[in-house]
Amino acid sequence: EVMLTSERYRVQRLPFSHLSDRDVAFFEGIMPGRVITNPEELKPFNVDWLKSVRGCSKLMLKPQTTAEVSQVLRYCHERNLAVNPQGGNTGLVGGSVPVFDEIILSTVLMNQIISFDKVSGILVCQAGCVLEKLNEYLEEQGFIMPLDLGAKGSCHIGGNVATNAGGLRLLRYGSLRGTVLGLEVVLADGSALDCLASLRKDNTGYDLKQLFIGSEGTLGVVTAVSILCPQKPKAVNLAFLGCQSFAKVLETFTTCRAMLGEILSAYEFMDEKCMELVEKHLKLSSPVAGSPFYVLIETSGSSSTHDEEKLNNFLEQAMTSGLVTDGTVATDDKKIKASHRFLFLRERITEALTHDGYVYKYDISLPVGKLYDLVTDTRARLGQNAKNVVGYGHLGDGNLHLNITADSYSRSLLDAIEPFVYEWTARYNGSISAEHGLGFKKKQFIQYSKPSEAVFLMQRFKAMLDPKGILNPYKMLPFGS
Amino acid sequence: EVMLTSERYRVQRLPFSHLSDRDVAFFEGIMPGRVITNPEELKPFNVDWLKSVRGCSKLMLKPQTTAEVSQVLRYCHERNLAVNPQGGNTGLVGGSVPVFDEIILSTVLMNQIISFDKVSGILVCQAGCVLEKLNEYLEEQGFIMPLDLGAKGSCHIGGNVATNAGGLRLLRYGSLRGTVLGLEVVLADGSALDCLASLRKDNTGYDLKQLFIGSEGTLGVVTAVSILCPQKPKAVNLAFLGCQSFAKVLETFTTCRAMLGEILSAYEFMDEKCMELVEKHLKLSSPVAGSPFYVLIETSGSSSTHDEEKLNNFLEQAMTSGLVTDGTVATDDKKIKASHRFLFLRERITEALTHDGYVYKYDISLPVGKLYDLVTDTRARLGQNAKNVVGYGHLGDGNLHLNITADSYSRSLLDAIEPFVYEWTARYNGSISAEHGLGFKKKQFIQYSKPSEAVFLMQRFKAMLDPKGILNPYKMLPFGS
Repeated sequence: EVMLTSERYRVQRLPFSHLSDRDVAFFEGIMPGRVITNPEELKPFNVDWLKSVRGCSKLMLKPQTTAEVSQVLRYCHERNLAVNPQGGNTGLVGGSVPVFDEIILSTVLMNQIISFDKVSGILVCQAGCVLEKLNEYLEEQGFIMPLDLGAKGSCHIGGNVATNAGGLRLLRYGSLRGTVLGLEVVLADGSALDCLASLRKDNTGYDLKQLFIGSEGTLGVVTAVSILCPQKPKAVNLAFLGCQSFAKVLETFTTCRAMLGEILSAYEFMDEKCMELVEKHLKLSSPVAGSPFYVLIETSGSSSTHDEEKLNNFLEQAMTSGLVTDGTVATDDKKIKASHRFLFLRERITEALTHDGYVYKYDISLPVGKLYDLVTDTRARLGQNAKNVVGYGHLGDGNLHLNITADSYSRSLLDAIEPFVYEWTARYNGSISAEHGLGFKKKQFIQYSKPSEAVFLMQRFKAMLDPKGILNPYKMLPFGS
Repeated sequence: EVMLTSERYRVQRLPFSHLSDRDVAFFEGIMPGRVITNPEELKPFNVDWLKSVRGCSKLMLKPQTTAEVSQVLRYCHERNLAVNPQGGNTGLVGGSVPVFDEIILSTVLMNQIISFDKVSGILVCQAGCVLEKLNEYLEEQGFIMPLDLGAKGSCHIGGNVATNAGGLRLLRYGSLRGTVLGLEVVLADGSALDCLASLRKDNTGYDLKQLFIGSEGTLGVVTAVSILCPQKPKAVNLAFLGCQSFAKVLETFTTCRAMLGEILSAYEFMDEKCMELVEKHLKLSSPVAGSPFYVLIETSGSSSTHDEEKLNNFLEQAMTSGLVTDGTVATDDKKIKASHRFLFLRERITEALTHDGYVYKYDISLPVGKLYDLVTDTRARLGQNAKNVVGYGHLGDGNLHLNITADSYSRSLLDAIEPFVYEWTARYNGSISAEHGLGFKKKQFIQYSKPSEAVFLMQRFKAMLDPKGILNPYKMLPFGS
């Protein structure tokens, strides 16, 4: 069994109230049958997907409406009960599960699509809709979600927004800060804030919704989302390439961006260690072999003829100039099978790593030129103490996923990695969390990426919006509630 | 001479301190020679570009550095002196000039480019850089600014960010909320907040910079900007088309979006009244004539062959199906002259309107299908009381510019327009300010687009960050400081 977070990290419970039978009875009154107290049923919601942190919540609530969320929070605020908002529980930094006995407020039953406008491409839905389901719904209407990530089969759109999820399509469609047009949020005291606008442009006052995007449930609970969805591209092509060095990976990116221009929708890289682990633990085989680095390129466009021509011109250039030594392409004809295989490999790296042992995960933004040096330096530093040190990520966004595996959790290995990785990142003005957030596991390192005045201001916002600190305590902010 | 704002709108001065000789001497000590007190020199900075509002500031300061801005604000905060941050003074809602005697804090001398990274396309510069100059600088390096607007020759990037400017390229490159990667801001008490990150992804805490984007100088003074710039498109094509009805304009948009896909970078429309005024007041002639509606389409892409093919296919389809009755295209060959003429027409509508008399300006977001009904209804309502009622705008973004001209300002005409236009907009869940902001002239109408809880929360943010209310008072928020 996973060690309790409070024991492993030696944290102190804050003086919130303890759950009483009267509290449970109150919740049963609001939402009969959607109040979970059975310890066995609660188990999977107390542990994160990586099995790295574990809380001991005794209660999970499953509201269906914003009004129910309001009622729950108003009560918890009055009673000083701590609350852990939870979506698909796919977070990677321990932000989505309780640290102690926080009440789990799940969006699992808030899964209704409210509206979709085919002219504007604007979708409005409840926070608990699963990303993949939304994408399937949209594809039937000729649109897609502006984000895509490995956890799409389980993650909730509300959780995506609350953590400002990045993923594979960010290079093309930009971040959620641009595509999310409106939010409905319930604040700590139970009051609902309706900013659920469905307009591309609205300059009437401060953009309050932005404060909740990426706030990891510490300022309010996202209950509904309005999001701008791009048209489904008529043509999608994928290329899987092998490069002999990271310098070639970078040069290939520059060439690719110039030659593919507006149709480039993803540029992902992974090192050979990644590939080995995927092959070993998931029995998947690589379409291209024997290279120290692999690159996955996706194009999305409105003309398959034009797009294939662009992609082929690029590949010819990349091959003849020696940037790329091997490669496979999946254009429309043979798309279905092959493309799934490529994307599958990339999407399942996280899973393969969990099979390799305990995983120390780092999600770093750096100037692209510096990106892989961190992997090399970390590998050299850890030597035989680590089982594997691998690097992959969204190169087009300057985002590296550095992962270190070991047979089991060890404090001494952790001390060898941290703060080394954070100091290294800070030296190049990088971010110690590009897309995963801070959650529980990274919160004490915020100062490596943010000046103290910024952290102070965050604390003032938190104190203003959640004066008792009941919303997702022990997360994101470095100290106090 | 323009009537004083305080007289025309009968507003009361808030109890800020009055400027003393000692204050002026203090500022002279900080920035000798950059302290303007000569009334003649101050005149143009007290009046907005539209000549619709006028303040009576007795002092303009021209800092060169963030440290100077800090010193100024720290002093003003202590002395309770009100401050009006000013960029290029091109705002359209009276937000950029003083209402009474606020000190004008101009960014005109903060015009240094700090860095530009050709690999990532990230530009870092001071707030006073002129948009057009930045674009020229970038073009030399193969990049462009992600925004473009008619005022580009005078507007400052800091002002663009502070007002969340939209403009012509939003359809393609998204809003500043996505492209601005970092900001440096000086708060009301003089403390500097460094959020000048240059990373595409950074999920370490609340995204504080978002609160300042679009805050119209009421929460802090933007002193530097980090912004993601797209590559300069290799091919730009323009088409100028005539349509027989607004329904055809809409249908043309849907067809165009499907057929041009990722290369569509602007879809602008204007009615024939607009065209008449441009021809009459600026002596410009339209490339296409005799239609009730005109459409300007811009494509930007990486292959002139592919782009022209897409555009020609679309035009053929639009012509043969009767969506479009007349049209001219400027592809790369004859680009330089022709394209300038098309864009010129579109960009100079605002200017042409000012020649027509006093202009009542409305900048509305609506569902695209409803967009032009507001123009028709307003025209019918005002009848002979208005000189001209015209509509144009960024159709692709659901953004209408409704303009009403009259020989001079009249309270009774204003009362016939407002709140009619706002009520109409609210009925269809539109925004009463899509991109211009609220400034002085729209602030009391915020409730037509925002629920009272949102306005209340805005006021709490204002009170927290600027407790004395010295930053751009009388603007954006509906009451009090």
